[in-house]
Amino acid sequence: MTSTSIVTAAVIVIGNEILSGRTKDINLNYLASGLTAIGIRLMEGRFIPDIEDTIVATVNELRARHDYVFTTGGIGPTHDDITAASVAKAFGLKLIKHDRAAKLLLDHYGAENLTEARLRMAHTPEGATLIDNPVSVAPGFRIGNVFVLAGVPRICQAMFDGLKGTLQGGDPVLSRTVSGYVGEGTIAGDLGKLQERYPTLEIGSYPFFRSGKFGASFVIRGTEKDRIDAAAAELHAIIRNLGAEPIEGEPAAT
Amino acid sequence: MTSTSIVTAAVIVIGNEILSGRTKDINLNYLASGLTAIGIRLMEGRFIPDIEDTIVATVNELRARHDYVFTTGGIGPTHDDITAASVAKAFGLKLIKHDRAAKLLLDHYGAENLTEARLRMAHTPEGATLIDNPVSVAPGFRIGNVFVLAGVPRICQAMFDGLKGTLQGGDPVLSRTVSGYVGEGTIAGDLGKLQERYPTLEIGSYPFFRSGKFGASFVIRGTEKDRIDAAAAELHAIIRNLGAEPIEGEPAAT
Repeated sequence: MTSTSIVTAAVIVIGNEILSGRTKDINLNYLASGLTAIGIRLMEGRFIPDIEDTIVATVNELRARHDYVFTTGGIGPTHDDITAASVAKAFGLKLIKHDRAAKLLLDHYGAENLTEARLRMAHTPEGATLIDNPVSVAPGFRIGNVFVLAGVPRICQAMFDGLKGTLQGGDPVLSRTVSGYVGEGTIAGDLGKLQERYPTLEIGSYPFFRSGKFGASFVIRGTEKDRIDAAAAELHAIIRNLGAEPIEGEPAAT
Repeated sequence: MTSTSIVTAAVIVIGNEILSGRTKDINLNYLASGLTAIGIRLMEGRFIPDIEDTIVATVNELRARHDYVFTTGGIGPTHDDITAASVAKAFGLKLIKHDRAAKLLLDHYGAENLTEARLRMAHTPEGATLIDNPVSVAPGFRIGNVFVLAGVPRICQAMFDGLKGTLQGGDPVLSRTVSGYVGEGTIAGDLGKLQERYPTLEIGSYPFFRSGKFGASFVIRGTEKDRIDAAAAELHAIIRNLGAEPIEGEPAAT
């Protein structure tokens, strides 16, 4: 039971409006948390503009490197929605009208309102499977290990929630947080040595300022619960030794 | 006056806590807006973990491709703060104790509290210039076209605000937003043709749902004010022609 299975992912956030600052992305954090919870490690996030060559190159680089790739944005009906065509090009596949997607849109909009533009949302790379959109019908799709999701957060989140049961996670990454009102610069030496004693764990230090006092939360992550608990016990002792009280989790807001 | 000067930038957000979902990044949006305002185009954002090889490769790829690169995160006193050393390695430079940075920290903490860990925050690649930290003293630094900023948002923002007067922007990107309660799928055909008639502009479509109605905001961006105004006038006519009222800017919240 010492071998670990590591499953990795990347997220590509597509959209000029994010890079201009007009729109604040919140999808990356949602996907990051959701993937972590099912034992998939998000290894990188890419924020790129609506430029075909950039989308093609980024998709191809990341799908070769990770088990799963998720894109958000650019699958609506307007001229600036070029994600589906770009992903098809990345895979060297034809962009086709997906019959079931077209049927979904027809049922939703009715023939009189199913404009040519709306029908664009039925186009996928040949061989793609649809990703359900319970919010506004127009589906996302999966091709190979690439999942193409909407950019509108409510739709992106609903699509991800619907598909995540189909993803194969690795060993779940367990996490335990211990906090204390100690300066990072005071505890850093001991903390670095603790990290050296537990090389299979990842110990992060995140400073905070609360109730007029500096402190830090220390997050211990890994796949072995017994090692995490042992490191946490040592960390409690380190914090006490510096004259502070260890707090399990984040400090309470005051 | 038809030649345009384009200045580009990339942002690298460094930190395991972002990719695990523990922490929500808000620095990318702040830098995106700030850069846009001074005529610098943010072309890509990268979210990467605290892994030296990844930081080195990402910094080297992006500094070759863009006029400016900004990193956030990983410059504190603990063992997981490896950004300064990684950037030095990317440039093939020695990591040295920067005398002025050490003096700043000494004045702030006093000799008795200037631990070895805190002194780590005085280390920069050889030849770097410091970036002022008005919040908590420990500075960022600039080396070549790479600006290394803190990850804590208040500090990151203060560092950026302090240095942005030194950045050389290109032609400012002007932007005008026109909205209307029209479905994206209804206006998409006309909008695509408008985009074709104005190839030097970038017309984005961003749907919204407000007061129980669907609509969209159309953002026209470019460097030529007269062209933007001409396209906006045509867009007003397109929206009216579809039976809706054009709204300058975003629709009022209700």
